Amino acid sequence: MDFELSEDQLAFAEAAKQFAEQMLAPNAAQWDEEAIFPKEILRQAGELGFLSIYTPEDHGGMGLSRLDAAIIFEQLAMGCTATTAFMTIHNMATWMITSFAKTEVAAQFSEQLVSGEQLASYCLTEPNAGSDAASLTTSAQRQGDEFVLNGSKVFISGAGDTDVLVVMARSCGEGANGISAFIVPANSEGISYGKKEAKMGWNCQPTRMISFENVRIPADYLLGEEGEGFKFAMLGLDGGRINIATCSVGTAQQALNEAKQYMTERKQFGRTLAHFQALQFKLADMATDLVAARQMVRLAAAKLDAGHSEKTAYCAMAKRFATDVGFQVCDQALQIHGGYGYIKEYPVERHFRDVRVHQILEGTNEIMRLIIARRMLAEGVELV
Amino acid sequence: MDFELSEDQLAFAEAAKQFAEQMLAPNAAQWDEEAIFPKEILRQAGELGFLSIYTPEDHGGMGLSRLDAAIIFEQLAMGCTATTAFMTIHNMATWMITSFAKTEVAAQFSEQLVSGEQLASYCLTEPNAGSDAASLTTSAQRQGDEFVLNGSKVFISGAGDTDVLVVMARSCGEGANGISAFIVPANSEGISYGKKEAKMGWNCQPTRMISFENVRIPADYLLGEEGEGFKFAMLGLDGGRINIATCSVGTAQQALNEAKQYMTERKQFGRTLAHFQALQFKLADMATDLVAARQMVRLAAAKLDAGHSEKTAYCAMAKRFATDVGFQVCDQALQIHGGYGYIKEYPVERHFRDVRVHQILEGTNEIMRLIIARRMLAEGVELV
Amino acid sequence: MDFELSEDQLAFAEAAKQFAEQMLAPNAAQWDEEAIFPKEILRQAGELGFLSIYTPEDHGGMGLSRLDAAIIFEQLAMGCTATTAFMTIHNMATWMITSFAKTEVAAQFSEQLVSGEQLASYCLTEPNAGSDAASLTTSAQRQGDEFVLNGSKVFISGAGDTDVLVVMARSCGEGANGISAFIVPANSEGISYGKKEAKMGWNCQPTRMISFENVRIPADYLLGEEGEGFKFAMLGLDGGRINIATCSVGTAQQALNEAKQYMTERKQFGRTLAHFQALQFKLADMATDLVAARQMVRLAAAKLDAGHSEKTAYCAMAKRFATDVGFQVCDQALQIHGGYGYIKEYPVERHFRDVRVHQILEGTNEIMRLIIARRMLAEGVELV
Amino acid sequence: MDFELSEDQLAFAEAAKQFAEQMLAPNAAQWDEEAIFPKEILRQAGELGFLSIYTPEDHGGMGLSRLDAAIIFEQLAMGCTATTAFMTIHNMATWMITSFAKTEVAAQFSEQLVSGEQLASYCLTEPNAGSDAASLTTSAQRQGDEFVLNGSKVFISGAGDTDVLVVMARSCGEGANGISAFIVPANSEGISYGKKEAKMGWNCQPTRMISFENVRIPADYLLGEEGEGFKFAMLGLDGGRINIATCSVGTAQQALNEAKQYMTERKQFGRTLAHFQALQFKLADMATDLVAARQMVRLAAAKLDAGHSEKTAYCAMAKRFATDVGFQVCDQALQIHGGYGYIKEYPVERHFRDVRVHQILEGTNEIMRLIIARRMLAEGVELV
Repeated sequence: MDFELSEDQLAFAEAAKQFAEQMLAPNAAQWDEEAIFPKEILRQAGELGFLSIYTPEDHGGMGLSRLDAAIIFEQLAMGCTATTAFMTIHNMATWMITSFAKTEVAAQFSEQLVSGEQLASYCLTEPNAGSDAASLTTSAQRQGDEFVLNGSKVFISGAGDTDVLVVMARSCGEGANGISAFIVPANSEGISYGKKEAKMGWNCQPTRMISFENVRIPADYLLGEEGEGFKFAMLGLDGGRINIATCSVGTAQQALNEAKQYMTERKQFGRTLAHFQALQFKLADMATDLVAARQMVRLAAAKLDAGHSEKTAYCAMAKRFATDVGFQVCDQALQIHGGYGYIKEYPVERHFRDVRVHQILEGTNEIMRLIIARRMLAEGVELV
Repeated sequence: MDFELSEDQLAFAEAAKQFAEQMLAPNAAQWDEEAIFPKEILRQAGELGFLSIYTPEDHGGMGLSRLDAAIIFEQLAMGCTATTAFMTIHNMATWMITSFAKTEVAAQFSEQLVSGEQLASYCLTEPNAGSDAASLTTSAQRQGDEFVLNGSKVFISGAGDTDVLVVMARSCGEGANGISAFIVPANSEGISYGKKEAKMGWNCQPTRMISFENVRIPADYLLGEEGEGFKFAMLGLDGGRINIATCSVGTAQQALNEAKQYMTERKQFGRTLAHFQALQFKLADMATDLVAARQMVRLAAAKLDAGHSEKTAYCAMAKRFATDVGFQVCDQALQIHGGYGYIKEYPVERHFRDVRVHQILEGTNEIMRLIIARRMLAEGVELV
Repeated sequence: MDFELSEDQLAFAEAAKQFAEQMLAPNAAQWDEEAIFPKEILRQAGELGFLSIYTPEDHGGMGLSRLDAAIIFEQLAMGCTATTAFMTIHNMATWMITSFAKTEVAAQFSEQLVSGEQLASYCLTEPNAGSDAASLTTSAQRQGDEFVLNGSKVFISGAGDTDVLVVMARSCGEGANGISAFIVPANSEGISYGKKEAKMGWNCQPTRMISFENVRIPADYLLGEEGEGFKFAMLGLDGGRINIATCSVGTAQQALNEAKQYMTERKQFGRTLAHFQALQFKLADMATDLVAARQMVRLAAAKLDAGHSEKTAYCAMAKRFATDVGFQVCDQALQIHGGYGYIKEYPVERHFRDVRVHQILEGTNEIMRLIIARRMLAEGVELV
Repeated sequence: MDFELSEDQLAFAEAAKQFAEQMLAPNAAQWDEEAIFPKEILRQAGELGFLSIYTPEDHGGMGLSRLDAAIIFEQLAMGCTATTAFMTIHNMATWMITSFAKTEVAAQFSEQLVSGEQLASYCLTEPNAGSDAASLTTSAQRQGDEFVLNGSKVFISGAGDTDVLVVMARSCGEGANGISAFIVPANSEGISYGKKEAKMGWNCQPTRMISFENVRIPADYLLGEEGEGFKFAMLGLDGGRINIATCSVGTAQQALNEAKQYMTERKQFGRTLAHFQALQFKLADMATDLVAARQMVRLAAAKLDAGHSEKTAYCAMAKRFATDVGFQVCDQALQIHGGYGYIKEYPVERHFRDVRVHQILEGTNEIMRLIIARRMLAEGVELV
């Protein structure tokens, strides 16, 4: 048992921290305000490896572990929550393509995805299948050397501004086993994009609905075998939950730092806020919960890396705990700022808006509780 | 002891409900999105008496109690939180002018304020005196028949778009006893307005800083006597806290209704959300807390109406409790909506952003706890 | 709308307060420690009317409302939680007998129950029907002029030390409609009592299982008509929930008073605890929640008195909210006492143990949530 | 970074688990009920090394780390919270003697303490210096080759039934620097013990006040140098906080296991409790919080082992978080048991009573927050 980061991990974290401070933080407010999707910055992130953290090295990725990724994403999220969250999605899609596509197909996409010259979206959620992925209805019909896709997806991050889609669609029957995963070029004929959704936060990521109408893709663009899509999706979700959880931790740490700073500067009743015991207690609880959240994320990442039999339950725990704590810490950081917390001049209100969606994404925190409980109540399972 | 509304109260509530449903709710999203200050609608509210609810009848007001006002504002807030919150501020300023100004001065302003042809802002908070009102530094110097004001105020609702300001300024020495209250025409020479603050919510209310540079007003525009300003401010805050608390209750009730509606329509795993026990429990707790919050507001309003010796403590309790509950209910209502809770197509994300500031305004909820504790620990005080 | 107690209510409260301070509080620790059931004190309570508060006057009761009862029980609970809780049960059983028994049968029991010369237990819960009363299996078979009871009841307060039992038993078919209510003399042949349960608190109330083996009672001892038992039980529960909720409020008020007193006396780091801001905040939140809980109880009691169509939902809300707050306040009061809170020399640890069961009794707080949610989701129901 | 236990740690945990299941769990209810201090069982624990886990090997101890100790104590606490808590105190006292006494003095005591033939109490707290250890007033005056002790200590675990006392007393001036630590044989002339305190829980540990009246001990019984006592006490507290925190984790895990078991057996409304979604969610949150608490304890233990500059803050975080979670989990486990949770037939009410004191001991959780906040606000400190 060892809680210290390795030399390599410290170096990755330092690189991510610098990128966050220099390239993300100074621009995040503007990206939010003007809903700018920072493609050029994402390309620069690609150059540093941040778009292919756990993509295998033989596909040009960094080949790191999920634990390493959690450490890196946490630092990036301190600079800009929403941009980092998009990077985690791109990482997942890229990992899925490079891990499960036929070798030559993977090769066809990997270089540009790794470098960030192309960006990827991940298409799972449907209007009537939010948390209930197994019931999705987008169809993929085999016709000769092609699959033909019909249906629609909602809440797709990057949609309309990305180049490659990883799409879950039903190709071989009812239920979870009928779902397959496909690579779909984003500009394929028959794809149309809905209007950009107006959202509370995550504004530098365009979110759109996608409609597929007789979209034809080469049969080779199938990932793995037919019927494996749900399995890939669930694997993706385990990682995706850690990713989103670590974005909450990073953002909350940033908010906590800002609140602490504010407390040492702002005076009321003749003393800085740092002198008020009730605020000190609040700060202490925020910090304590955040340390716990970080440990939960790293524990789950390690379980995922180790292929632990209960990895899904640990990832669900980490996601539930860290995204709840992340929001509460941002909420309290905002409160400490008083009236200044509510105006956009201070970044804390953006942190607050951005992390709120993490309690909903990648399976709501209610779904996380279902997953955890189901495993707990299964015969012979111990979650400690 | 009687918890039922009177016939009159039911009638007022019904009128407010209709106004909220017809004039506020259909426009609230647009006002928020485009930061529109709905002056024409406010004038219509004035016609119905909603801008002078507890202004004395001899000044053209409705002359109702604070309890009546709480009942009315709650209904209005169900239509638009931020517009209603502005109405409460206007009500407070109008009440202050009509209650404490010299009769002929009050007469000069009351008609237009009551009708909504003119709107009022309330200027207490300063950059370095957020919760610590007694330390404010805006000065008012007597020079012959005039007072000359210098200093600045921040976070002023309506500033730049209103016609009349009620300003707290230091005219006669240090501390709370040196503060006086003044009516200041908003277009007086020497007043300049800062940029419109970009805020998380309350977007249909412009919020600006105001600077006073040798602003001259007739000495008659003093409210009450010199040195009474802090007393008036505190009286104003008691009512202001109930007002903002009831805005939280109304908004949260609206959010709860929307969440309930969503639960009966949205299906997941083959059943409506209303069938899921964990969501039922969430709904039950939201409703229970909200009923408690409403009672707290009405209890405090009744204490204020009765001039109870501990009215300030009860108002502080109501404000702390109802604004915390209000936010939590909106937060949970958003969560119940899943991904749809995060996009502007559904009103719940606006409710969430709008009520968040209520935990900060009119004295942060931390200040409320100080006030409550101070009274509890005072000799012979019982708060039951 | 009026939140003030009437003259009569103030007088009742004062009488209850005196009884609590003089007869209950000085003995409560000993009764707890030695598990003494204070029958003589209960008789004295009977003399003052506290055993028949809402028993009709024509049966010798005080004929007061449930709201009056809540006000009285709150004061009594400040003296001894468990004794007062027993009084509430006796009140319920006495009310049931005097309200639903044949007049001459009621007359046969009422005088002694009202005076406290005889005490009553209420027998609803069964080993396999905790929260699911409609599934109870104790049977009552009509045989000529008698009913013959068989079965068993658990967690019966007072059992083994009381004189009269009100028993719910199945006499006419499956489900809720097959249940009838009976008066059963506690010393009837065929009744046997289990061992006295060792409990965490409520120690001055003996709690035992009761077994009925061919227990014969006159057919006249049926309350109302056959099949009305479940209806009576549910009516009883509405009142029972308010009663237990008000016991939580009274106990928590006592604990809060003790914590406040301790804070003004105990010194640490050279100052009394009352000087520490974080403890002040804790005190403020305890007081605020408790005021809200009291209002909830009184609101529900008023709804019950008025026969409001949603009285059951309001009683469930009051029970859930007030018993949760009651425990939390006692828990925090204990914490404020530090190490002294954990030893029996101070009463706060008894308050803590005693109120804990209120979250479980009379339907667990989970069942309360079910009841509330069910009403909320019913067509056309508004709980405000 | 590595979250897995080593082979050795797994073996220690297994040994502790067996001891807990065979020697502690079957007796814990009786020890609690009859307030039995299980000396013989403690001696058997000594044989297995559980009384000298981090005592240096050259004094006969196991010489393990604090992390190892946390793993072992967690398992033991699953069998009996209060007995394990006493073991942790004995471990601390033994560690202090063997680490800081003169070699020959240590040798004089160590064998019997390690084996459990003698038991030790730790005497820091005084009636007027609960959390404010630096202000203690028990005096130790040098007179020739002896120290003469006067004063009194309160809440001393084991007092009256132990053989050796480690006593903090003032020997050389005001403030923290005037405090020294001493070994005092428990039967020294001039020592008198108060009555056994009646407590809510921890009943198998006798707790008494100790008075010192001219108690003479050899000057050699001084630990370290004069004035080092406060430093030792603080070192002891760091470890003591991890110990008590891990006792909370173990007890809560046991309570959670029992609640889960109950849910799979108890039926209501025709289904086992395990089928009710709201209870599933409760269970999931209990488990998640508990995993986080365990990680916090282990993280802090690792920081203490590594001599991290902020070890005290991490230990405070772990103590605050794990003892709060520990109590909440036991409280919810009790609630899941319904009425059966409140009676002594089921162990969960004992867990609930036993862990409650952990939020108070070794510095209240309010003091923990002070410690954490002070470090957070110190220049250049990062707690991540």
